[in-house]
Amino acid sequence: MSTAFFEPRNVAVVGASDKRGSLGWGLTFNVLSSFPGKVYLVNVKGGSIEGRIVYRRVSDIGEPVDLALIITPSNTVPEVLEDAGEAGARAAIVYSSGFSEAGFKNLEDHIVNVARKHGIRLLGPNCVGVIDGWTPINATFISMERQKMPPRGSISIVSQSGALGSLIMDLMGERLIGLRRFASVGNAADVKMWELLEFFGEDPLTEAVGLYFESLSEGRKLIDKLSEVSERKPVVVLRGGASESGSRAASTHVAALSAPARVVEGLLKGSGVLRAETMSEFIAILELLGRKPPRPSKDNVIVVTNTGGMGVLVSDSLELKGLKLGRLSGGLEAKLRRVLPPYVSINNPLDLSGGAPTSIYREAVKTILESQEAGVLLVVNQPQTIAMDSENFIEFAGELRGLNIPVIVLVEGSGYSRELANRLRLKGLPVASTPEEAAAMVWALSASRRGGLERPPEHPLEARAEALKVIESVRREGREFLLEHEAKALARAYGLETPRGGLASSVNEAVALADSIGYPVVAKIVSPDVLHKSDVGGVILGLRSPEDVIDAYEKLRRLAVRFKARFTGVLIEEMVSTRFEASIGALRDPLLGPIVMAGLGGVLVELLGDVTFRKAPLSVVEALEMIGETSLGRLVEGYRGFRADARKIAEAIVNVGLLISSNPEIAEVDVNPLAVLDDEVKALDVRVKLTC
Amino acid sequence: MSTAFFEPRNVAVVGASDKRGSLGWGLTFNVLSSFPGKVYLVNVKGGSIEGRIVYRRVSDIGEPVDLALIITPSNTVPEVLEDAGEAGARAAIVYSSGFSEAGFKNLEDHIVNVARKHGIRLLGPNCVGVIDGWTPINATFISMERQKMPPRGSISIVSQSGALGSLIMDLMGERLIGLRRFASVGNAADVKMWELLEFFGEDPLTEAVGLYFESLSEGRKLIDKLSEVSERKPVVVLRGGASESGSRAASTHVAALSAPARVVEGLLKGSGVLRAETMSEFIAILELLGRKPPRPSKDNVIVVTNTGGMGVLVSDSLELKGLKLGRLSGGLEAKLRRVLPPYVSINNPLDLSGGAPTSIYREAVKTILESQEAGVLLVVNQPQTIAMDSENFIEFAGELRGLNIPVIVLVEGSGYSRELANRLRLKGLPVASTPEEAAAMVWALSASRRGGLERPPEHPLEARAEALKVIESVRREGREFLLEHEAKALARAYGLETPRGGLASSVNEAVALADSIGYPVVAKIVSPDVLHKSDVGGVILGLRSPEDVIDAYEKLRRLAVRFKARFTGVLIEEMVSTRFEASIGALRDPLLGPIVMAGLGGVLVELLGDVTFRKAPLSVVEALEMIGETSLGRLVEGYRGFRADARKIAEAIVNVGLLISSNPEIAEVDVNPLAVLDDEVKALDVRVKLTC
Repeated sequence: MSTAFFEPRNVAVVGASDKRGSLGWGLTFNVLSSFPGKVYLVNVKGGSIEGRIVYRRVSDIGEPVDLALIITPSNTVPEVLEDAGEAGARAAIVYSSGFSEAGFKNLEDHIVNVARKHGIRLLGPNCVGVIDGWTPINATFISMERQKMPPRGSISIVSQSGALGSLIMDLMGERLIGLRRFASVGNAADVKMWELLEFFGEDPLTEAVGLYFESLSEGRKLIDKLSEVSERKPVVVLRGGASESGSRAASTHVAALSAPARVVEGLLKGSGVLRAETMSEFIAILELLGRKPPRPSKDNVIVVTNTGGMGVLVSDSLELKGLKLGRLSGGLEAKLRRVLPPYVSINNPLDLSGGAPTSIYREAVKTILESQEAGVLLVVNQPQTIAMDSENFIEFAGELRGLNIPVIVLVEGSGYSRELANRLRLKGLPVASTPEEAAAMVWALSASRRGGLERPPEHPLEARAEALKVIESVRREGREFLLEHEAKALARAYGLETPRGGLASSVNEAVALADSIGYPVVAKIVSPDVLHKSDVGGVILGLRSPEDVIDAYEKLRRLAVRFKARFTGVLIEEMVSTRFEASIGALRDPLLGPIVMAGLGGVLVELLGDVTFRKAPLSVVEALEMIGETSLGRLVEGYRGFRADARKIAEAIVNVGLLISSNPEIAEVDVNPLAVLDDEVKALDVRVKLTC
Repeated sequence: MSTAFFEPRNVAVVGASDKRGSLGWGLTFNVLSSFPGKVYLVNVKGGSIEGRIVYRRVSDIGEPVDLALIITPSNTVPEVLEDAGEAGARAAIVYSSGFSEAGFKNLEDHIVNVARKHGIRLLGPNCVGVIDGWTPINATFISMERQKMPPRGSISIVSQSGALGSLIMDLMGERLIGLRRFASVGNAADVKMWELLEFFGEDPLTEAVGLYFESLSEGRKLIDKLSEVSERKPVVVLRGGASESGSRAASTHVAALSAPARVVEGLLKGSGVLRAETMSEFIAILELLGRKPPRPSKDNVIVVTNTGGMGVLVSDSLELKGLKLGRLSGGLEAKLRRVLPPYVSINNPLDLSGGAPTSIYREAVKTILESQEAGVLLVVNQPQTIAMDSENFIEFAGELRGLNIPVIVLVEGSGYSRELANRLRLKGLPVASTPEEAAAMVWALSASRRGGLERPPEHPLEARAEALKVIESVRREGREFLLEHEAKALARAYGLETPRGGLASSVNEAVALADSIGYPVVAKIVSPDVLHKSDVGGVILGLRSPEDVIDAYEKLRRLAVRFKARFTGVLIEEMVSTRFEASIGALRDPLLGPIVMAGLGGVLVELLGDVTFRKAPLSVVEALEMIGETSLGRLVEGYRGFRADARKIAEAIVNVGLLISSNPEIAEVDVNPLAVLDDEVKALDVRVKLTC
């Protein structure tokens, strides 16, 4: 990355124009009116704009240009870049469209090559540019007449969409959320989103980063960078296209369930970023971070309101975010009862009623703060109530800044409310404008980073050696899928428990195996031609005697004949009875790399889709998070007299993660069902597919 | 209900005041400045306000008063009401607080009695009053300085919360959503929400109704009225407290799962109202209805945007509402390609790019409208783009009104955008201000009322007679729970299929039963002391021979001894193997009456909570809706080579609905699992609990 994008020594606007309403005019106007440094205007037509000379080419300027802003027709860009390169430019922003987004990938590759040749870093093309609130420079063509701009501050923004970037600026401006730097990446031909993230991550004046993105083209690199940066400062992410359905050709459960959007969702969760679900949440969380509230010392949220209904709606919104209002302690209740009018019923939310002026708020809030019971204090003020003395309230609110407890204010309504909200913002408070925004702010405060940094375990070398043996033999036979006993051997090498048993190639072997295991046992057909054993009757449960085993072996052999399938033999295994089944899967995604999936299992796994995703390899802590995101979490908490061992399930997830990440030959792994027993877990079925 | 609340011949303001900032002053000011009819001011202090005489009591006025507005201290209200009653008042609004909400239930009962004695209908107490946009009258103490008020129009509002009612007025005012009538019910001591709903339902000038409520105190009556009114006009409902967790002491699945909030959610869905999830959605849907768009003739939504990112966010929001953007036909694609610039890629959403002026919108929209492919047209305009010529766009938007296709516009942003939005609203278009609002509007358009009005089936009299026999014998024995064979007999009387089998009281009977059924069979302990049979090992599956049956019988007998449980016998039944299980339950709710639950079943039913609720009795159409709201819907669509028979499941739901609604002696019914087989369903276990 180049600092020249944000702190250029000087800039040249190539395609400068005084034609009102044109993009060139917008850019020229914005740069001239914001940047204190030297600005050169360039346009092939020459002449002058506002008394400034317009050069015909960058090289005519006669001195080195640091940052070239290029807003000329796409076909002229290579030439302009060549010229700028010869004039010593370190960085260039190409605003023009007409590149890969319009089908002209070659032209885009060409300008990247020209830039690289000259050592120029290139932002865009097809972007709205950059803003630095401190330099200051506004190197965008955003219309200053149609929207607001944020004041100077500590939030940096990366946006894949230019127009949504503009909207983010507008909404930040309206809510007085301070901006450090903004960059729209457009087609990201050279400078990528992950580079900007890294750059903002290292920038001492950037205290939080907001990212809007849609495309997954930067894949694992972007996810890894998000993890890295959010270790150091909060990163808020809004992802467009989160609902994309799209699915894969699916021979395994994990493939059927791993729609790109769901996988990315899991990977984002795992990266520790703050995931906003709507633009409103995105802006609200940025506002919160921009006001730099203290960290809450505990989870408990206390709500004080002059509108009972708003208290109710806030509770609903908090609950949707997985947060709950605690009860006030008996002591705090008693104190509040003493200082508040008798008609106020003492609860959380604390409804002061529409008759409450600021003095009542003051008493209530003072008492709550003294109690030290609130992790977060949320003050709802509907100024529509006739008793509200807004001027006093604003003064009072100013006193709530700089406490050791974060305070959020909620004010909803039209013009008057909006003005009140902005006056409260000027006092340094984060102000939500809907219950949903308030809940998003509280959620962001309480979303603590996962405890410490547990690294995934090392790749086990012996397991890899064993795996290679199996994989090579399967490859030699030209197979794509491992047979069940092979897949289970692989799973065992990586520490997964499987039922006792083995492959029998004859009736006698089957009986001997069953005798050594102890009855009842299960018999499963083993054939490279039978993928979905249960669907064709290839699994026979509850064999209680050698006679049963003999019958079953014969039945499975005949089944193979009927389906014209090769018959490798029969897998004889102990019968494991379980009330609860999990499912673990893994997949090698072309963009996102190895990923792992976990959730409830069994025959309903695809129907319920109650699964979540992380990148592999992963740590036990991450695996425990996955359990908490699915119904497995409730099994672990205890359900109908049964409590699953979270650690055992988590270790199985970690092991499947290692299996996929240390064996690049493996495309997909399906462990389903994973029997969840009292104090252990067992992989009842394992399917492994190799890469082609 | 009395029309005097909204169209009084004259009004008396009791507690009139000129003390700025007091509630009495707010009310006096609002009434005087809105109502064209005669207004009498009353205050015990007498004197004059703004040159008007202030009477000391209503009876001093000397002529009959139609509507008394009472804003005096709560303890004076009975006397004021007496006096107003003697002066002939037909209706009274009591704004004052200090009644049941503050613990003074007696005082509230008292004023209701006084009102009834005089034939006065009473609204409140503890409310903000009423507004009629047409009379006009603003009989509230809402501050006109702090908020906006809606223009005259066709929407009527009922709000349980006064302050949220004010906010609704403010937000409707800001968005120019026309108001017919507004009423805040407060404690609803006399006039109930359901009465206002009915009244607005019958009002020809009310074209749609909005309801905000929290408390369930009006129970089934409110739900029934919502169903009734929404047959005639759209009713939009926002419910506060929708996330209340609360649960019941649970001996059955249905009791464990029927948290009040979930039940109400199901009943609201079943009532045909438009359920808003947030205040923003509530207002957006009201705006849509207020603009009176035509009904869409098909589902397909086409989105035209000048911001690709906004198109993506809108798609995400639509998907969250269960709506999907269709593809454009090849023909439409070709036509759009002809009229649009080459850089526009032809898709849905159709991204015209930030460079699009109104002329390009015009071409695109004209072509789409001509194609007749759009059920709803959603036009996104981010005016921040420099190419946008807003004046032309406003003119163009005016032409989109009065077409036979509903058009929604989305404009997000600060001041400039808000002003643009309101100018578009003045052209008669519904304008969303976030993607979520746009999606709510589209959803409201496409949420067609359930087809026709299928009535629930009649209560079967013979079944009732049979049920009574069973119930009476159970009662005689002082039992609360039916034994499984009794519960199944009851279920069969109501048309549910159960496995073949019966109760065996001896080993010989058991073997004889098993022989007649055919092997394999299942044996289940029958004992009034064993409620959760499987949890204690009281169910033995897969008995393949008389010997197995003998063993099982003995085992179950010993089990009873071990648990010191009475041993009635053993239920011997055919073994039904199924891959998929549903669950149906029913419950008699003290407020909401008989309700029915359905969803995925089996051991995980409570863990997954994948269930939905309706009132009982219900029709097959409603039962089919329930199936669609749970994962059963995917089983019915076909899953892994299996397709459940929706009709059979729906009939079972209807039958359980009849069972609970025609037998008031029954408190709870649990049919779980209901085996879902290829062409039938069978209740594998039925539990019935009687009322105490």
